[in-house]
Amino acid sequence: MTSDRLFPTDPDETRIEILAATYEALREHGYADLTIQRIGEHFPKSTSLIYHHYDGKDELLLDFLTYLLEDFDPDPEPDCDVDARERLSGLLEWALSPPPDEGAAAFRGAIVELRAQAAADDAYRDHFDEHDALLQAGIETIVADGIEAGEFREVDPSAVAAAIHTLVIGSLTRQATTETFDPTTVREEVDAYVEDRLLAEGR
Amino acid sequence: MTSDRLFPTDPDETRIEILAATYEALREHGYADLTIQRIGEHFPKSTSLIYHHYDGKDELLLDFLTYLLEDFDPDPEPDCDVDARERLSGLLEWALSPPPDEGAAAFRGAIVELRAQAAADDAYRDHFDEHDALLQAGIETIVADGIEAGEFREVDPSAVAAAIHTLVIGSLTRQATTETFDPTTVREEVDAYVEDRLLAEGR
Repeated sequence: MTSDRLFPTDPDETRIEILAATYEALREHGYADLTIQRIGEHFPKSTSLIYHHYDGKDELLLDFLTYLLEDFDPDPEPDCDVDARERLSGLLEWALSPPPDEGAAAFRGAIVELRAQAAADDAYRDHFDEHDALLQAGIETIVADGIEAGEFREVDPSAVAAAIHTLVIGSLTRQATTETFDPTTVREEVDAYVEDRLLAEGR
Repeated sequence: MTSDRLFPTDPDETRIEILAATYEALREHGYADLTIQRIGEHFPKSTSLIYHHYDGKDELLLDFLTYLLEDFDPDPEPDCDVDARERLSGLLEWALSPPPDEGAAAFRGAIVELRAQAAADDAYRDHFDEHDALLQAGIETIVADGIEAGEFREVDPSAVAAAIHTLVIGSLTRQATTETFDPTTVREEVDAYVEDRLLAEGR
């Protein structure tokens, strides 16, 4: 995920500029050490403008998460000639691969820190409920499409999606919070699960 | 997990009394709102004694996590006449059941917040690396024992353990950070996975 893709390079809105600066600051400092001042260092205009837009760090971060959610699509190719197994692979590839670079790793770490805020803060909790509902629905659609196309067996799409979804959150959490976790081993086992449990006979 | 089981009721050590008070305060306030002062409210002696033992909240919490780790056993019945599938069930029961009460839910939330500190803090990271190595080894032993006893197929114990472990962390994280997550649906799918992928023919 690059800043360029997420945030237009010539933003005409101060909000987008603030959110792009938040993205850079989160990658550099993580959640705990983030301050409006540090976001200001990545913001081309005056930092006081950030205070004018947001009451504090958490209000800004919740708007940042809302912005990310608008762009979040766990199943980007539902209408193409891509089979369900490949769509599921695309999703697993994203969640069960090591982050491509240090900046991406730091950003994933920040998202794990933001999710942890939901343990004690209802506004974050509402956000992650919404996020998880989108992810669950995305995986469910892939599984249901696979069953309809005869690629997958007659499994319960919601149970399969809940398990894969939980594994995805576990992988992102472990990647961000430990040194030794290797998501590729998990990927191998998930591929075996897809083959043994999901794929229809002869597929 | 009750405070009584973890912490002796008549502790003869100030350290154990401080850690028991930390447990109660974490359940009440979570990580973000925790202060030494608030831990002191659950401590029968003077709060200044806590400052004498620990340099700050994080040093105390890391010692608290170390204490918990001494008691942590993902596979409590390795030597009994319990088959591998049942031992695996015991572990899944713990991770994929809703917390028994509000206090337990709050404590799980606090542990998720503590794990998130590892995204930016090496001391927490070292702890969760150690924690995850123990959990991984515990699951691996169960799977290897099951293969040896002919209960399970010739799967790769380390890959199966990595997948189940990741699912466990995902479940605990989702339970603590969302309102709508239902671990029992995931449990059903994991049981189906164990049946389809692990159980030897005729078992």
